[in-house]
Amino acid sequence: MNIGILGGGQLAQMLALAGIPLGLRFTVLDPAEQAPAGAAAHVLRASFDDAAALDRLAARSDVISLDFENVPVAAVERLAAQRPVRPGALALATSQDRLAEKTLCHRLGLPTAPFAPVDSAAELAGAAAELGTPALAKTRRFGYDGKGQYRLTHPDEAGAAWEALGGQPLILEGWVPFDFEVSLLAVRRVNGEQRFYPLSENRHHGGILRCSRAPFDDPELQRQAQRYAGALLEALDYVGVLAIEFFVQAGRLLVNELAPRVHNSGHWTIEGAQTSQFENHLRAICDLPLGSTEPRGHAAMVNLIGEEPPLAQLAALPELHIHRYGKSARPGRKLGHVTVTAASAAEREARLAPLARLCEADLPASSLGLPDPTASR
Amino acid sequence: MNIGILGGGQLAQMLALAGIPLGLRFTVLDPAEQAPAGAAAHVLRASFDDAAALDRLAARSDVISLDFENVPVAAVERLAAQRPVRPGALALATSQDRLAEKTLCHRLGLPTAPFAPVDSAAELAGAAAELGTPALAKTRRFGYDGKGQYRLTHPDEAGAAWEALGGQPLILEGWVPFDFEVSLLAVRRVNGEQRFYPLSENRHHGGILRCSRAPFDDPELQRQAQRYAGALLEALDYVGVLAIEFFVQAGRLLVNELAPRVHNSGHWTIEGAQTSQFENHLRAICDLPLGSTEPRGHAAMVNLIGEEPPLAQLAALPELHIHRYGKSARPGRKLGHVTVTAASAAEREARLAPLARLCEADLPASSLGLPDPTASR
Repeated sequence: MNIGILGGGQLAQMLALAGIPLGLRFTVLDPAEQAPAGAAAHVLRASFDDAAALDRLAARSDVISLDFENVPVAAVERLAAQRPVRPGALALATSQDRLAEKTLCHRLGLPTAPFAPVDSAAELAGAAAELGTPALAKTRRFGYDGKGQYRLTHPDEAGAAWEALGGQPLILEGWVPFDFEVSLLAVRRVNGEQRFYPLSENRHHGGILRCSRAPFDDPELQRQAQRYAGALLEALDYVGVLAIEFFVQAGRLLVNELAPRVHNSGHWTIEGAQTSQFENHLRAICDLPLGSTEPRGHAAMVNLIGEEPPLAQLAALPELHIHRYGKSARPGRKLGHVTVTAASAAEREARLAPLARLCEADLPASSLGLPDPTASR
Repeated sequence: MNIGILGGGQLAQMLALAGIPLGLRFTVLDPAEQAPAGAAAHVLRASFDDAAALDRLAARSDVISLDFENVPVAAVERLAAQRPVRPGALALATSQDRLAEKTLCHRLGLPTAPFAPVDSAAELAGAAAELGTPALAKTRRFGYDGKGQYRLTHPDEAGAAWEALGGQPLILEGWVPFDFEVSLLAVRRVNGEQRFYPLSENRHHGGILRCSRAPFDDPELQRQAQRYAGALLEALDYVGVLAIEFFVQAGRLLVNELAPRVHNSGHWTIEGAQTSQFENHLRAICDLPLGSTEPRGHAAMVNLIGEEPPLAQLAALPELHIHRYGKSARPGRKLGHVTVTAASAAEREARLAPLARLCEADLPASSLGLPDPTASR
């Protein structure tokens, strides 16, 4: 079976690495000169609005998916007229627009931060006065890794925020003093079968995910998350892996964001679960029985951002699984990730410590959720 | 770093799938029309004695390895003049010739079946009289999966055996009434660092490996096997994974055969060990620190031979890891393998049973080492 993917980044690479052993073969469409997925997939180098290239992708594929959500919906519609695209245009359109996403949650009764649509500086000032400050103004579209956001500490800043964000439609979100963040990977097959991974606990720094630990063991939060995810999967008639980021506030979950694809906070599943998110995404879109989402021990994933430690130094750390994406170094760029596995959470934490020293030299240990080694005892 | 591989079969495919996450990129040389490794490697389609193609492989590679041992030594020597070839020509020449292999074991004091070199029908008859019958006549070179063998039940059969095996140099091996077979995967890095995987217990049928279970927990046999493997690694100045098959006879090991490469009986390491044999082979030949060879629970690997069950049926079995090689079906051909993982040996056996029904419909359950379900209780 031939799989086409819009986007040829590391997610497409990991999809291909998971799918080749199933007998699947991959074609990716990507405008970049050196798409990471090229190591394991045929690459069509073209922009996402190149109609002829889209048609070539469709011709080479039995089913089409995507490795990032900021592709033009028109491209997806053109493909969908020729081949199944999973997840489909509805899921994509919803997750591309923070307002549509939040509105859907609201309609389904899923708690989120308070929010208001904003179409001018004046509306922004009004919304900030109503929701209270601090509050986060976000572009409705094309935001990721903390980009496209402005933190207002007072309604007076509405003009500056409106300008800084480029004078485009926004959403203002009330400030949520959350305790920590978790995410859920949910997967739904063409025939409606659903599975859920254990929650992972996520640490960010500078707006970018640094570390995910799983399984996050809280049966009540797990139940809440699965209930919310199930409602979203059904509402979107979703096929594939859907990632949902949550704020945890005093024992309850607030939906923060959806990603209609495999997700960075699920990379730990490659070694830490019976079936990886990548394999289950492929099983789902190929209408194959889903694999077990049970954890295998305890895992933690750490992103390699901006620069990579030398391979020999990474390889010298015991029980470490290395994933390099073949991308050139650039500040803030995700170049790879590493995963530690362990029989217990305590053992996992012990294995994280030397990794933190190697990968996060420039960051506080707290960015991985580790105790500060320089703190007095 | 760029890796070249002589041979583009499933072993090269699994090397590439293990190496791409390390940032390695692969080129394989293979004469076949559809080399399985082509899914994850650049393919040079040429015969192994095509000097220009060998030079192209060298030019594209920083280090060169092989996915099967029956390549012309002259090809390896041509490559070795241009790039490091690991393991080297000595290991290859030794393992290509059963007599050289057995002679090396003898020199190192490693027990084997009794053997004698044979260069004519008359010598074969004499050796059979001396070693006793039954005895196995084997071609010295190019035998695999039980091919190139003749079982003599009486010295009188020497003429027929000599003719059946094509009148070429042979080795006669005395019959060993072994209890069962195990194999050891050993790995040695350029700098001499060595590691050993837990023993796996292997079941064959019709001369072909059907099932491997690991870890085979016998500390005394593990010690013996590692001592023997260490001696072989040093004697051959070996770099990479070396597979050693042993007969177990009343609590002692006899060396049966060496394979200078990753090995079918080590496929369980992909999910069943902290670092797979494929990744450790690559770490070894790239002179990187070796990864942990510790097991992750209990694993069993079953080969898919001759025909594959439908993917949807395999995918419906819980906790199963599927590896298809992308080869066309042919009787006796290894088309893929599946691995079950479990927290205990008992759980592993329970998971093997439905798999046996699916994969081995035409075979006795005993070929997987399972109790016969039709036997009276």
